[in-house]
Amino acid sequence: MKASDSMTRVFLIGAGPGDPELLTLRAARLLGAAEVVLHDSLVDPRILATAPQARLIDVGKRCGRHSAPQQEICRLLVEQALAGRVVVRLKGGDPMVFGRATEEMEALRAHGIGFDVVPGITAAMAAAALRLSLTRRGVSRSLHFLAGHGAEDGLPAHDWVALTRLGGTLVVYMGGKTLPGLAAHFIEAGMAADMPAVAVEDASLETQAVTRGTIASLPSQLAAAAPRGPLLVLIGPAVAEETGLAEALTAADRRWATAGADDDWNVNFTLSG
Amino acid sequence: MKASDSMTRVFLIGAGPGDPELLTLRAARLLGAAEVVLHDSLVDPRILATAPQARLIDVGKRCGRHSAPQQEICRLLVEQALAGRVVVRLKGGDPMVFGRATEEMEALRAHGIGFDVVPGITAAMAAAALRLSLTRRGVSRSLHFLAGHGAEDGLPAHDWVALTRLGGTLVVYMGGKTLPGLAAHFIEAGMAADMPAVAVEDASLETQAVTRGTIASLPSQLAAAAPRGPLLVLIGPAVAEETGLAEALTAADRRWATAGADDDWNVNFTLSG
Repeated sequence: MKASDSMTRVFLIGAGPGDPELLTLRAARLLGAAEVVLHDSLVDPRILATAPQARLIDVGKRCGRHSAPQQEICRLLVEQALAGRVVVRLKGGDPMVFGRATEEMEALRAHGIGFDVVPGITAAMAAAALRLSLTRRGVSRSLHFLAGHGAEDGLPAHDWVALTRLGGTLVVYMGGKTLPGLAAHFIEAGMAADMPAVAVEDASLETQAVTRGTIASLPSQLAAAAPRGPLLVLIGPAVAEETGLAEALTAADRRWATAGADDDWNVNFTLSG
Repeated sequence: MKASDSMTRVFLIGAGPGDPELLTLRAARLLGAAEVVLHDSLVDPRILATAPQARLIDVGKRCGRHSAPQQEICRLLVEQALAGRVVVRLKGGDPMVFGRATEEMEALRAHGIGFDVVPGITAAMAAAALRLSLTRRGVSRSLHFLAGHGAEDGLPAHDWVALTRLGGTLVVYMGGKTLPGLAAHFIEAGMAADMPAVAVEDASLETQAVTRGTIASLPSQLAAAAPRGPLLVLIGPAVAEETGLAEALTAADRRWATAGADDDWNVNFTLSG
């Protein structure tokens, strides 16, 4: 436990991608002590249940539904803190990644209210559940998180050419509605139409749904699948299924089983390296 | 608890940025049940202590020290799993971000060994402890993680012009030794010499040290400070200290205190929005 925790009254906490077991130990402890929890709509009810003493206030945003404007969330946060309560502001994923934490931190600072921030597993890391490494030696040495929508839920103003040139792994947050436009921009900017792309809905939850395709095919695949939850899209050479490689390793594996000796290891790993 | 956990024998687990309380609940539970833990050198001893029954094997890499080559790590992982033990491969941060997880997953797949991956808080999110939002509405709509070194610990071959053009937040992992070269490349590529840059050593630990400067000044500031732990460098407009804004809010705060009414809220938040 951090020494400062007993003095601080307001915590901006990341709830992680969905699975309640992907909360951090610190988040779980602080939720257990919370008196008020201001939470996003998408936070799992099982996570909210870890704050049994708290008054729960849903301030979340969800596509197409009414939600409290950011200004009202800030007002509530300050009001509850000034009333002397232990307040948790619980955000999906990590508070510092597309979480509009800046506005809330500024409101707290403006009123001289002490606060601390507890990081969470951001949705991109839920890709771990797919057993896809987001970076890969010799394939992808960089990783890029992009907002999938801009002002008024339109397309964001990214530098598509620069993003395409990087050749790293791209992760698009909240791009469910804008994916057709995003894909068109990437292809126009020079991305290969057969660049591997994977969409993950409800990452880390039992309802997780994965759609694999290419940057050209994924928009129509998703239109058919009609995702309803928050969608994460991974794009890049690192997210390819290792079909060819798997075949090579199966051959190596047979040789391994036959040889049964450590001496053969170098041969096997030449194939996988 | 995931239904599959009782069947799986090998877990690639992210240990998070350092603070033992930033382990996930799932990681803590699985470490408690582990029989063998193959861990990076940089994993905190307090985290290793949560696996009291396990044989601990340090396979970690640390700058300038001997470490097991990747091939030997894969061999150990397969050997321990085939011996029927519950094996945890514990990596700093998140296993899928600059963690060389691909090689280990391929080795396990090649031997038909079932495994699962448990995400961890990656070091960039420890920026949360600095109360710096990595993305910021109207300032930074994208976030980019870069390897700080390439083959043979030299400079990585990034597209410096594309990275600079993006205007998002850049996070450089393991760039302690190469920062002077990285900074020179960014400035040559057109980055403003006064672009805010923040270096964080031992993020999330009691020994955390933060150095604030610009892309031009940070290399010499760090040379003077002589960091020894793993270093994370954040670069971009979003990581600026909000000095001017803080002054504006102080003025707004005075007006708020005087007015004491919700009616005044819009005025205050026009300043912070």
